[in-house]
Amino acid sequence: MSKLVECVPNFSEGRRQEVIEAIAAAVTSIRGVRLLDVQSDASHNRCVITFIGAPEAVKKAAFASCARAAELIDMEQHRGAHPRIGATDVIPLIPVQNVSMEECVQLANDLGASIAGQLHIPVYLYEEAARMQSRRSLPVIRKGEYEGLKEEIASPERRPDFGEPKLHPTAGATVVGARPCLIAYNINLATSDVRIAKKIANSIREARGGYRYVRAMGVLDEKRNLAQVTINMVNYEGTPLFRVFETVKSEAARYGVNVAGSEIVGLAPMQAFLDVAAFYLQLENFDRKQVLEENLIGKE
Amino acid sequence: MSKLVECVPNFSEGRRQEVIEAIAAAVTSIRGVRLLDVQSDASHNRCVITFIGAPEAVKKAAFASCARAAELIDMEQHRGAHPRIGATDVIPLIPVQNVSMEECVQLANDLGASIAGQLHIPVYLYEEAARMQSRRSLPVIRKGEYEGLKEEIASPERRPDFGEPKLHPTAGATVVGARPCLIAYNINLATSDVRIAKKIANSIREARGGYRYVRAMGVLDEKRNLAQVTINMVNYEGTPLFRVFETVKSEAARYGVNVAGSEIVGLAPMQAFLDVAAFYLQLENFDRKQVLEENLIGKE
Repeated sequence: MSKLVECVPNFSEGRRQEVIEAIAAAVTSIRGVRLLDVQSDASHNRCVITFIGAPEAVKKAAFASCARAAELIDMEQHRGAHPRIGATDVIPLIPVQNVSMEECVQLANDLGASIAGQLHIPVYLYEEAARMQSRRSLPVIRKGEYEGLKEEIASPERRPDFGEPKLHPTAGATVVGARPCLIAYNINLATSDVRIAKKIANSIREARGGYRYVRAMGVLDEKRNLAQVTINMVNYEGTPLFRVFETVKSEAARYGVNVAGSEIVGLAPMQAFLDVAAFYLQLENFDRKQVLEENLIGKE
Repeated sequence: MSKLVECVPNFSEGRRQEVIEAIAAAVTSIRGVRLLDVQSDASHNRCVITFIGAPEAVKKAAFASCARAAELIDMEQHRGAHPRIGATDVIPLIPVQNVSMEECVQLANDLGASIAGQLHIPVYLYEEAARMQSRRSLPVIRKGEYEGLKEEIASPERRPDFGEPKLHPTAGATVVGARPCLIAYNINLATSDVRIAKKIANSIREARGGYRYVRAMGVLDEKRNLAQVTINMVNYEGTPLFRVFETVKSEAARYGVNVAGSEIVGLAPMQAFLDVAAFYLQLENFDRKQVLEENLIGKE
């Protein structure tokens, strides 16, 4: 099976469609990557591009998009609701197939060195690629945002991992890192009482003593008037979908509430679904190679 | 996505390894097919070859293997425990991806016409490709086996669908057809009492009022001393895995017995696993395109 890395860079442009398209075109100009998704948000003034490919191709495409964003976005003019420190704000690299986390960390290092060396944009390494514990956290790196970092970057504790301790005059700084695949997962409750969703969210989120790899909030789905536990599964191998689902079901029962349904938002790796099937069917000796499509022509 | 058909021909040779290899080599000589599995059984004196590819390539490979088997196997000399009527006994064609059952039925017709026309082996069409209701059933077509069919083939009700009503002098006759993908599925009970497995098997099998697309038996797994419900899921879309598993669990509870686990034997399509995950997670608006790997490079 060929090596595959997913890359989901975030850029500080969510309004000018022609700029978003130009950045996406920089990605697709690289042979061997496949563009999966482009999403933008005008109030955040931010867009997220998802693409996938072999490690080297992904590195080239990430660099090309970062270079294009540096040409087209001026952080001095940028306003938006979402925290950010640069034109290319953050570039996560995600192992998808036949690639280890270590390889993605190395890729993040190579990419960071190129961005700093060739584009003169300072780079911070985060999550699995972080060189110090505190920088595993994106909010810590982004503290003060573009405007605050302009002065603070000169201080020793905010010195970038690559490049000079000085923001690029228009492109700011960029965060590069490696992390496991994130699954956006919502569980809908058969009640409109959002307080119940909030209590259940607290029971599963790491911050409140719940599962290590779960971020969760209770919200109201206004369209359907249903309370919803909205979840980021930040490591579906460490904390699997079925365990979170069963816990939410059990916590909801305490309030006499049923689970109305659940929803995967966007993409999730096949393994996450196979793990669910294997759990509920109590599968013995199950191997991913038993999935017929894993043997298809065209896969290397 | 490219069109993919699976083909699982059964040949009347399970002892002479060089013959089995020569038949498999006839399959792999055709560009665009991928050999997935070769299994043989000496007491049955029979082998089963599994391969996959685009419809036209699969047809060529099935024809090539049938031609090779006709050269190497003499039904006058063949003895074995498994019912059979020809050197190439049966050729099932199975839609896997982006192919309809109707296309597989057409493919079975084309293949049958070629085998009869060029190899002078009479061909019966079965399952979804059957032209009369009685011939949907393989045991009906194989009644009397090679030896009995030799005389009966001349009678109107046993006339082949393609070719003259006369067995090939060494290769006999061949059955060709189209059918949904079959999943071999075992559910192990936490008891050694095989009578309970037999009762549960009766509760789920079509023949005894159970699910339409389920064939099942109760047996003893002697190695582990566990009673087992051994199941052929002949249409996993019509009768899904999760429904059978839940029914077996519920029937077992009646006897105070737990399900120890279950097992997929061999291959099953990804959709069968996705259906299980969607059922247990109560997934809303789920689309197969949300599986990351469905978007991979190399798939057309």
